[in-house]
Amino acid sequence: MPRAVREQQMLDAAVRTFGQRGYMAASMDEIAELAGVSKPLVYLYLNSKEDLFTACIRREARTLTEAVRAGVEPALPADRQLWDGLRAFFTHTAQNPDGWSVLHLQARTHGEPFATEVAVMREELVAFVTQLIVVAAREAHRNPSLPEREVAGLAVALVGAAESLAAWANATPGVTARQAATTLMNFAWAGLDNLMEGNPWSPPAEPPGAADKET
Amino acid sequence: MPRAVREQQMLDAAVRTFGQRGYMAASMDEIAELAGVSKPLVYLYLNSKEDLFTACIRREARTLTEAVRAGVEPALPADRQLWDGLRAFFTHTAQNPDGWSVLHLQARTHGEPFATEVAVMREELVAFVTQLIVVAAREAHRNPSLPEREVAGLAVALVGAAESLAAWANATPGVTARQAATTLMNFAWAGLDNLMEGNPWSPPAEPPGAADKET
Repeated sequence: MPRAVREQQMLDAAVRTFGQRGYMAASMDEIAELAGVSKPLVYLYLNSKEDLFTACIRREARTLTEAVRAGVEPALPADRQLWDGLRAFFTHTAQNPDGWSVLHLQARTHGEPFATEVAVMREELVAFVTQLIVVAAREAHRNPSLPEREVAGLAVALVGAAESLAAWANATPGVTARQAATTLMNFAWAGLDNLMEGNPWSPPAEPPGAADKET
Repeated sequence: MPRAVREQQMLDAAVRTFGQRGYMAASMDEIAELAGVSKPLVYLYLNSKEDLFTACIRREARTLTEAVRAGVEPALPADRQLWDGLRAFFTHTAQNPDGWSVLHLQARTHGEPFATEVAVMREELVAFVTQLIVVAAREAHRNPSLPEREVAGLAVALVGAAESLAAWANATPGVTARQAATTLMNFAWAGLDNLMEGNPWSPPAEPPGAADKET
């Protein structure tokens, strides 16, 4: 069996073990057994538990971002692109709960260098969503001057909401990828659409000087 | 000086050190020096680095949830309550960046029992927002039957978006609490308002059978 195939089997076993048991509790013995190989072979191919975990994070981050990108057809209208991207995201996290647990939970709860690996994926997703919102605003010819910082903030909010919902959907029996995506579209799209129409939400009037007290 | 006052000084120094250096790199020597006490006194009062970190998480979680609750006046309209609660949240996280770093980053990146402490605070915030949405829907007499699971999902999305934005606002020079709260209201309120009006976002029609393939 070629090395690349064996390595993928080891990574499959490792993602399942890390995702279900947690990074600390997972043992290399268990991973080797689940992969159907000897422990020395795991060390020979992946070097250490830390390197194996890093390889898992990288693979799961790559397959997740690829799934989202593959789900979106750039020629379609903006709300359709967002809907398709969210469904691809929630379908992938639902079908790969151990991989999502590795990315969202395990990689962030065991310090560096793992947290940085996830931060890189997160920045890529935020940049992708930012671009989607910018293009949507431009296509609509409505508010081409939506400030860059405002768009960045919206993308950060959307990605944070999606991460939070994916963890909740996987922990809540009966919530489908489609339902999670619908919840987020209900939550997000009307607001984005209003913004692009030039109708932002208006904060209530403040008594004079009140705003100065805020940070 | 009474023990309670000394302990608060130690916690102040610990939150600053853990927040800025990270849990692993922070030393008890540094914390004691910053608090102006001897290291044996820190151990006498707080027992261990782990217990000190847990005490920091609990205090920062309590002051954050108290700040949000104190910012909201239950007699006001729903969008005003949400706006006030978000401003209180972002004002608190901006004024206490080290405390927010402890809660959002440090407590989640160093395993148990710390991650569980933050999960408890998170559940409380989600329950608070859920209640806010339920009351808003009921007050509006528009959609009193907004399904419980849908409301729970919306609250999970809102809290995830707020956490994500708070981290971004603290890392991005010049983003104020008011701007972060406005971004999230722009993002969230129009969608929630539409839902309560009985106008959800509609997914595009699917070819027959397409939905069955999803999880």
